[in-house]
Amino acid sequence: MLPRVSTTDADRKHVFHSWSAQAQISPPEISRAQGSHFWTADGTKYLDFSSQLVNVNIGYQHPKLVAAIQEQAGRLLTVSPAYANDVRSEAARLIAELAPGDLDSVFFTNGGAEATENAMRMARLHTGRQKVLTTYRSYHGATAGAISATGEPRRWPSEPSVPGIVHFWGPYLYRSAFHATTEAEECTRALQHLRDTIMVEGASTIAAIMLETVVGTNGVLVPPDRYLAGVREICDEHGIVFIADEVMAGFGRCGEWFAIDRWGVTPDLICFAKGVNSGYVPLGGVVISAAIAATFADRPYPGGLTYSGHPLACASAVASIGIFKEEGVLEHVRGVEETILRPGLEEIAARHPSVGEVRGVGFMYAVELVRSRESREPLVPFNASGPAAAPMGAFAAACREQGLWPFVHFNRTHVVPPCTTTAAEMREGLEKLDAALTVADGYCRD
Amino acid sequence: MLPRVSTTDADRKHVFHSWSAQAQISPPEISRAQGSHFWTADGTKYLDFSSQLVNVNIGYQHPKLVAAIQEQAGRLLTVSPAYANDVRSEAARLIAELAPGDLDSVFFTNGGAEATENAMRMARLHTGRQKVLTTYRSYHGATAGAISATGEPRRWPSEPSVPGIVHFWGPYLYRSAFHATTEAEECTRALQHLRDTIMVEGASTIAAIMLETVVGTNGVLVPPDRYLAGVREICDEHGIVFIADEVMAGFGRCGEWFAIDRWGVTPDLICFAKGVNSGYVPLGGVVISAAIAATFADRPYPGGLTYSGHPLACASAVASIGIFKEEGVLEHVRGVEETILRPGLEEIAARHPSVGEVRGVGFMYAVELVRSRESREPLVPFNASGPAAAPMGAFAAACREQGLWPFVHFNRTHVVPPCTTTAAEMREGLEKLDAALTVADGYCRD
Ligand SMILES: Cc1ncc(COP(=O)(O)O)c(C=O)c1O
Ligand SMILES: Cc1ncc(COP(=O)(O)O)c(C=O)c1O
Repeated sequence: MLPRVSTTDADRKHVFHSWSAQAQISPPEISRAQGSHFWTADGTKYLDFSSQLVNVNIGYQHPKLVAAIQEQAGRLLTVSPAYANDVRSEAARLIAELAPGDLDSVFFTNGGAEATENAMRMARLHTGRQKVLTTYRSYHGATAGAISATGEPRRWPSEPSVPGIVHFWGPYLYRSAFHATTEAEECTRALQHLRDTIMVEGASTIAAIMLETVVGTNGVLVPPDRYLAGVREICDEHGIVFIADEVMAGFGRCGEWFAIDRWGVTPDLICFAKGVNSGYVPLGGVVISAAIAATFADRPYPGGLTYSGHPLACASAVASIGIFKEEGVLEHVRGVEETILRPGLEEIAARHPSVGEVRGVGFMYAVELVRSRESREPLVPFNASGPAAAPMGAFAAACREQGLWPFVHFNRTHVVPPCTTTAAEMREGLEKLDAALTVADGYCRD
Repeated sequence: MLPRVSTTDADRKHVFHSWSAQAQISPPEISRAQGSHFWTADGTKYLDFSSQLVNVNIGYQHPKLVAAIQEQAGRLLTVSPAYANDVRSEAARLIAELAPGDLDSVFFTNGGAEATENAMRMARLHTGRQKVLTTYRSYHGATAGAISATGEPRRWPSEPSVPGIVHFWGPYLYRSAFHATTEAEECTRALQHLRDTIMVEGASTIAAIMLETVVGTNGVLVPPDRYLAGVREICDEHGIVFIADEVMAGFGRCGEWFAIDRWGVTPDLICFAKGVNSGYVPLGGVVISAAIAATFADRPYPGGLTYSGHPLACASAVASIGIFKEEGVLEHVRGVEETILRPGLEEIAARHPSVGEVRGVGFMYAVELVRSRESREPLVPFNASGPAAAPMGAFAAACREQGLWPFVHFNRTHVVPPCTTTAAEMREGLEKLDAALTVADGYCRD
C-alpha cells in the first residue's frame, strides 16, 4: 500500500467528509491504533476518550477480533440476504440470546441509520399506524427517515421531514423542560408530558415511540429510574411499539449488553450498531419481538439491503461477543466506573467552576460546561460554531496538547473511552481532563 | 467457528430476512464459494449467474482481494469520518481518477441506499430546490428517501413517500410507454415526455433527475443511444442536477468503470456500491462534481454516517480496482460479451418461443419471458407472487437442477454472472439456460 500522493493531499482533493464544510477542515491523519490509543501520522500518541464515534468499545485492533476477521475473510466474504450462512445464524442467535424478553429475531443492517429506518418501518406496518414519536435532543442517523426522527439541529437542513414524525421532550433534569427540581419530579412530569402529547396527537395514529435508551451525542441524558418503565406502560396501554435506539448505548457502553437491561424494561425493537463489533466492519441491526416478527411471518417484510447479514460483519460480531464474555468487559466497565470514573469525575466537578454537571452510566459520561454554575448558562450557546464555539475549541486543544483525545459536542465533553480502557489509563485520562478544564474555567463569568 | 445449533435452525429462529415472509422461506445455506461458483451446505455446486445481488463482480474469494482485506485488518480497521487515512485517501483518489469529467470528490457510504439518499440531499441543497424526478421501473434502495425514489412495487408498503419525489417513464422500447416502434423514436419520445413532465412540474422546483444508467433489477433497460445525452442537455438547460445511480451498473458490470462512459456523458453525481469492491466489505458512495463539492466548501454538508470511509472497506476498493486493472476485467467482460454472451443469448432467443426479448450490455443481460411473442404478454403478471409466479419458479428450478443459479425477477431472468466468469463457464451457463427455457416454453399459449 504505497499511495503515489500524500494521504493528506489526496484527502483534501478527493475525500468528502461527513458533516463538514470541506474547505474549512484539516482532518488529522490516523496512521495507527492499538488498544486505548491511536497515533496521528506525525507520531503523536493519543489516549482516546472518544472511541472514534463512540464505537470502538473493544479497543483498537484487538488481536483476537482481528484474527477472527482475517479467518472469515479467508472462508467466505459475501453472501446475499436470501441465503442462510453459518456466521450470520450464529451472530443472530447470540444477539437474540443477549436481548431481553422475546426479542428473538435479528434484522441486520450496515449501520445505525438503516437500523432506525427499518425499526420505524416495522412498527408502522405492525400497527397500521403512521406516526413515530421521538425526543428533541436525539440523534437517530442521517438517511431521510432517520434524520427526520432526529431531534437536533442536524435535522434542519434536511427538512421537510418524512410524514408523521412528532418530537416531544424527554427527561433532562439539569435543564428541565418541566420545571422539575428532583429526579422523581422530572420523571413524573416527563411521563405526563408524553401522555399529554399522545392525547393531543391521538394514540390511534401513533405507531411507535423511539428513544435512545441513554441519549448519546446530545448529552448523555440518563433516564430517571422509573422513566423507561413508564414509557413501556404507556406503549402497552395504547398498542404503541417501543423502539429502543441503542446504537450508541448498547454492547458494553453502559456496562450492559443492552443499556435498557439496567432498568429491567423490555422494548419491542432494539436498534444496535457501533459496539456490536466496535465498527471493525460496518454492521447494525434491529432485534425484533416475537409479536412483531409474527406480523411478517406470512406477509413479506418490505425492506432490505444488499449487505444484510454480511458474513464478514457477522463473524466479527460473533467474535466480539465472545471476547466480551471471555474478558469480562461488562464487569470491567462497571468496576472502573464505580471505583475510578464516577468518583474521579465527581472530584473534578467539585474543583472546576466550569463544570455544571457530571452525569452518565458505564463508560458513557458527560461533563456539561457552563459560564456559571448558578445560571447554568452553557459555556457556548446551543449549536454554536465558529468563534462562538471558541471556548470548547480551547478546551479540546488543551486536552490534545496533553495527548488526550476528547469527544466534544456543544457545551459538553463526553468521557466515552473504549470499554477495555484500563484503570491506569482511565486515571491518566481523568488527570489530563482535569488539567484541560482549567482552560474552560477561564471562560466562566467570575 | 462451531455453532452449537445448526445454521438452518438458528436461521429460521433468529435471522430476519430482507423482503421476505419469514415463515414462508427456507433459505438455502451457502457454505463455500470460489470464483464463479458457490456451494450449498449439501455439497451442491452452482455456477452463479446472479453474482448474489449482482455484486460479486470480481468473483468469489479472489485470493488477492482476500489477502488485501486480511492485511488491512491487521493494520487498521476503523477510523471515523473526521480523520484522514491512507487507504481512504487512496480509494477516493482512484475512484475520482476513474470517474468522468470533474467528478473528483467521493463521499463514502456503507451501501447503495445511503448513496442515493446523500446524492438527493446534495442536489437539493446545491440547487435550493426540493423535487427529485426518478423513473418508474427503478430501484434506488430501501431507506425512506431511497425507497420513495424507487419506481416499483417495493415502494408501495412504505408510502407515504418523502415529500417531493416525482416519477416519470423512462425508455423501454419492448414495452414502450410512448407507443414507439423504433429505438430512435423511443428515445425522442422519452425525452419529450421528460421535457413535458418538467414543464408541468416546474423546472424551478426540480433539484435532480436520478436515473439508473442501465436500469438493473427492473429489467436491464439499456437506454437508447442518445437518451442520456438528451437528459444531460435538459438538466443543463434548467439547472437540474443529473444523478446517475450506478450501484448495479458500475465497476465492470457493463464492461466499463462507470456504465455512463459507454455513452460519453458526464452526470453531476454518480452513486456506486456493489462492484466497487464486490461487496466483500459493505461499501458505497457518491462521486461529486466540482461544482457541487464547491457548494459545501464553506457551508457544512449536513449528512454523514459513522462508517463513512471505513478503512477496511476502502482498502478492499483499492485492491479491487487494482485487480480489475491487472487482470483486464473490463476487457474480459467486453470480449466474452461480444463473442459468447450476446451471440449465445441471441441463438437462445431464436430457439425459444418463451423468449420475448434479449437485451443488455457487458455482463448485464435480461431475457424477458412471454406467453406469446406476438402479444408480448409476460410469462407471469407484473409483481406476481405465489401460484401466479409458478412458471418463473419452474424455470428457476430447472436451472438449479442443472447446477446453474439464476437471477429471476418478475417475468425475466437476468444473466449477471461475476465479471471474471470465463468463456467456458459462460458457455456452460448458457447451455443450461437454454435447457431450462424449455420449461418456460411449456407455458406459452399454444
Ligand atoms: C443513537 C444513534 N442512533 C443512530 C445513529 C446512526 O448510526 P450510523 O452513523 O451508523 O448511521 C447514531 C450514530 O451516532 C446514534 O448515536
Ligand atoms: C440501482 C440500485 N441502487 C441502489 C440500490 C440499493 O443498494 P443497497 O442494497 O446496497 O442499499 C440497489 C440495490 O440493488 C440498486 O440496484
